[in-house]
Amino acid sequence: MPVYKAPVDDVVFLLSDVFHIERHANLPGFADAPPDLIEAILGEAAKLCEDALAPLNRVGDQQGCTRHPDGRVTTPDGFKEAFGQIVAGGWIGISVPTEFGGQGLPSVLTQIVNEFLGSANMAFAMYPGLTQGAIAALIVHGTPELQARYLPKMVTGEWTGTMNLTEPQCGTDLGLIRTKAVKQPDGSYRITGTKIFISAGEHDLAPNIVHLVLARIEGAPAGTKGLSLFVVPKFVPQPDGSLGAPNGVTCGSIEEKMGIHGNSTCVMNYDGAAGWLVASENEGLRAMFTMMNEARLGVGVQGLALSEVAYQNAAAYAKERLQGRAITGAKFKDKPADPIIVHPDVRRALMTMRAFNEAARALVLWTALKADVAHRSSDAKERQAADDHMSLLTPVIKGVLTDQGFANTVAAQQIFGGHGYIKETGMEQFVRDARIPMIYEGANGIQALDLVGRKLAKDGGRAITAFFAEAQAYVKQHGGDAALTPYVAPLGTALGHLQQATMWFAQNALAKPDNAGAGATDYMHLFGLVALGYMWARMAQAAQQKLAAGADDRMKAKLVTGRFFVERLLPETGAHLARIQAGAASTMELPAEAF
Amino acid sequence: MPVYKAPVDDVVFLLSDVFHIERHANLPGFADAPPDLIEAILGEAAKLCEDALAPLNRVGDQQGCTRHPDGRVTTPDGFKEAFGQIVAGGWIGISVPTEFGGQGLPSVLTQIVNEFLGSANMAFAMYPGLTQGAIAALIVHGTPELQARYLPKMVTGEWTGTMNLTEPQCGTDLGLIRTKAVKQPDGSYRITGTKIFISAGEHDLAPNIVHLVLARIEGAPAGTKGLSLFVVPKFVPQPDGSLGAPNGVTCGSIEEKMGIHGNSTCVMNYDGAAGWLVASENEGLRAMFTMMNEARLGVGVQGLALSEVAYQNAAAYAKERLQGRAITGAKFKDKPADPIIVHPDVRRALMTMRAFNEAARALVLWTALKADVAHRSSDAKERQAADDHMSLLTPVIKGVLTDQGFANTVAAQQIFGGHGYIKETGMEQFVRDARIPMIYEGANGIQALDLVGRKLAKDGGRAITAFFAEAQAYVKQHGGDAALTPYVAPLGTALGHLQQATMWFAQNALAKPDNAGAGATDYMHLFGLVALGYMWARMAQAAQQKLAAGADDRMKAKLVTGRFFVERLLPETGAHLARIQAGAASTMELPAEAF
Repeated sequence: MPVYKAPVDDVVFLLSDVFHIERHANLPGFADAPPDLIEAILGEAAKLCEDALAPLNRVGDQQGCTRHPDGRVTTPDGFKEAFGQIVAGGWIGISVPTEFGGQGLPSVLTQIVNEFLGSANMAFAMYPGLTQGAIAALIVHGTPELQARYLPKMVTGEWTGTMNLTEPQCGTDLGLIRTKAVKQPDGSYRITGTKIFISAGEHDLAPNIVHLVLARIEGAPAGTKGLSLFVVPKFVPQPDGSLGAPNGVTCGSIEEKMGIHGNSTCVMNYDGAAGWLVASENEGLRAMFTMMNEARLGVGVQGLALSEVAYQNAAAYAKERLQGRAITGAKFKDKPADPIIVHPDVRRALMTMRAFNEAARALVLWTALKADVAHRSSDAKERQAADDHMSLLTPVIKGVLTDQGFANTVAAQQIFGGHGYIKETGMEQFVRDARIPMIYEGANGIQALDLVGRKLAKDGGRAITAFFAEAQAYVKQHGGDAALTPYVAPLGTALGHLQQATMWFAQNALAKPDNAGAGATDYMHLFGLVALGYMWARMAQAAQQKLAAGADDRMKAKLVTGRFFVERLLPETGAHLARIQAGAASTMELPAEAF
Repeated sequence: MPVYKAPVDDVVFLLSDVFHIERHANLPGFADAPPDLIEAILGEAAKLCEDALAPLNRVGDQQGCTRHPDGRVTTPDGFKEAFGQIVAGGWIGISVPTEFGGQGLPSVLTQIVNEFLGSANMAFAMYPGLTQGAIAALIVHGTPELQARYLPKMVTGEWTGTMNLTEPQCGTDLGLIRTKAVKQPDGSYRITGTKIFISAGEHDLAPNIVHLVLARIEGAPAGTKGLSLFVVPKFVPQPDGSLGAPNGVTCGSIEEKMGIHGNSTCVMNYDGAAGWLVASENEGLRAMFTMMNEARLGVGVQGLALSEVAYQNAAAYAKERLQGRAITGAKFKDKPADPIIVHPDVRRALMTMRAFNEAARALVLWTALKADVAHRSSDAKERQAADDHMSLLTPVIKGVLTDQGFANTVAAQQIFGGHGYIKETGMEQFVRDARIPMIYEGANGIQALDLVGRKLAKDGGRAITAFFAEAQAYVKQHGGDAALTPYVAPLGTALGHLQQATMWFAQNALAKPDNAGAGATDYMHLFGLVALGYMWARMAQAAQQKLAAGADDRMKAKLVTGRFFVERLLPETGAHLARIQAGAASTMELPAEAF
């Protein structure tokens, strides 16, 4: 059975030594989270994930969810009790403002805890995760009445939440949504239609489920401009707080999927269900995007989470499995063979995962801290800059962390050889589970288009300009530091590639937008490598400072891992640039019939 | 349900226009296979695969194989009838020499048919495929008596074959094998031990199964030098041709795997089973390698096969699924949205698969033709050169075609969005099935080490020198041809990278062999890109000649696809070179405890 140990020490290093969280003490909620409290919270989260959730991961995969003839859905053995621990610990609301019943702690903590949850049991973690997304949308767009009625119970986890966007004929293209809303004299609406791929759509973990549903009000314009967002509870809460009769929403079936079997992916049928408008009429897409942006960062974290747990298991196996001898001569002559970690190609795979994971975690925390600044700072300029960062980096984190996270689960499985292909070791489950984050909350191709087609040019390129300025200033400031040169010089080269690619789009994509589309995925990955390389430079700097102050071997390992990153992963930027600059001609030339 | 159409036209183009199979007419068996007969055979194979085998692919995945309490194993519905068609058509023996009951046709035909079979139903195709491997070993190493007793029935497919290498404590490191053989007075042996991961180890497709088993004769040296290969039939054939009592070999259990559920992967228990020596005592490994080399080429073909069928389905879906509008303006205003094939990022994915598949198929046929020369030419020098080619290219084909084949199934699944994650569309099965070829018959890391550690230096580097000479001569000869320059110039650059990498190993890996190990996987992929790039240059040349002679749009599509390859896939060679030249330092520096 797979092992998991939450990387608490690494998180503490990042928060304290790389990002100096203490400098944010002026933000609301941060003063309530001094380093020792943060460590204590992370320790509790680690315990929950390691002891309660990880052991249920394989059970969840094997049993899956079951829809009964009466429409009820039951989750795998142990999920209900484990969800009780989520509720008891108040984990869903740790970063929710206190006015809505949360603990108001920095949202960076939520991202960290979500990484731990995702590593331990991704299918399970989606139940609280989706609830957090729904809470975010209600906080920003809900009326005070809706907020009062739903948020307290969602923040505790007593009720859970879902997002209902997809329909059989539309996933990416929400303008094609057909689900209808008809206004009632009392101001509520009747919602009718079919939604598919609804994660956590029906289950037995909570007595009520709060669906957020995109639908079209009778007579609304076609396309995305005519979409409105509704709250549709499974049971309508009564004024006295009790639950009323079942609403007209039922689970029609559960999808048979490649993975995340422990999460119920439902076809939801709305048959005149009572719904209440969130935000204004025809403003549904904007409200949904609030939810989606939170969710996209969270999905990126899932990619990291699976990469981390897969890495940990591959490393443990590589130290244990005896096979062959080191090329440089037997290392353990008393054993029938050496452990496979002596083989350079096995190391290469392990170091690749590790070098990625540590930088990806840094990128997530850096961006999550920006989210806190964007939501909590009293300085408008600072808020705007932080918001620009988030808006720019969210598609990069979603796309790159899930693509590479998946690739790393495959590499980790490979270290197990044939045993990795057998269900028993659990490695193939990581691969199957890691496949979905590349698809949902906007497939990665859409993330790349969002980055290239929307985020680069937004506000006159303010966000990308600021990112370049920061990275370039860093390279300039530290380029002369001999100890940091191995990290900063390759970062400078990679940053140059990203700038050239950005320039190339500016010069070649206005007249021929296909040039942007054909280069978008490469650009997203090029951007990701630069951002991760920047994280490595900053981590190396912090590690060198700690070593100078007498720190342990862990900081030496950081420096080696960072060197591996710049030597082995960063050179890919040149290939991405070449592909981008090739343009769209050969990509677009064939007629559709030729395929 | 997935669709499949065997690429007969593409094969005919490769055989006739690129590799000029008619120039091999002097080889035994080739004169019996004029172009029209080859087309007829391929047409029959296509029919079998499209109509009979492809429809069973999902059934096989859903039902899997069942082990009954009495040890019998039954295959999914329809497999037995389909296997009857394999036997009736004589498909297993099309390239087996006529003296052993085969048709003696070029072995290139077997590789082509195996691609079709693998695309249609990989789990099913393994039953005849493994039989072919066992036949190959018996032809080269079996005594005339063993050959007479087993080959006729195996060549027809009346009996099937298996390879038994792996044990719980050893996969890659066969020196650790513990299965014992004890010589009997009658010259036979008693075999005792446990083998795991035995594909097609037990099933109901044939009345007898011929296991080839690696074991250690009592008193034999430790390590790989003490291994011998044995034939262990499920039922011992009697002199009158009937089957005797059951031998002491049974299926202990069936593994639960990630994919290829239609193939029974067995734990095989040998309990004093009667076995007969193949080759000489302690020569088992060499005999097993005969079988393995055939098998490795076949496994590479599986990677291509799954990539091809995944591509076909992704292309069909992309032409059908309506979502969004082309960036350059709506293409189908009468429809609610454009088909997603209008989007450059979807095209990029499709073109990547296609550009790979067409070149991979060329590489397989080029190499399979060399196998025919190596086995059938009367000219010793020609035989040796062909054998060098095969020996060098086999690990490249196995490693690169399965790694990239898997990546392509993932990319094809991505085009389906959320629908690709649902079992119903069949796309996720391709991903799960495509995962195993990267592992079995020597995990891809082992292929890379075989290439770098063994094949490069073998016979003073004769094989790689010849490969470089041929590719360089081609680049030189056609470098000045303006029409071919777009293909040949990038090939020259990529070839330069491969030569630099080879030189770097020569200079840096003798003193520090870890430098070779740490760069092996990158080298294998670099080699693959150069080999595929060379195939594209030759295909482009043939396509231009055909176009000049008035050929159709298919040849224009070839030229565009080739351009996509050199613009979008080939630039990766520079990154591989950079990674190789980084050496092993950061890869090997951390102590094992740091992981």
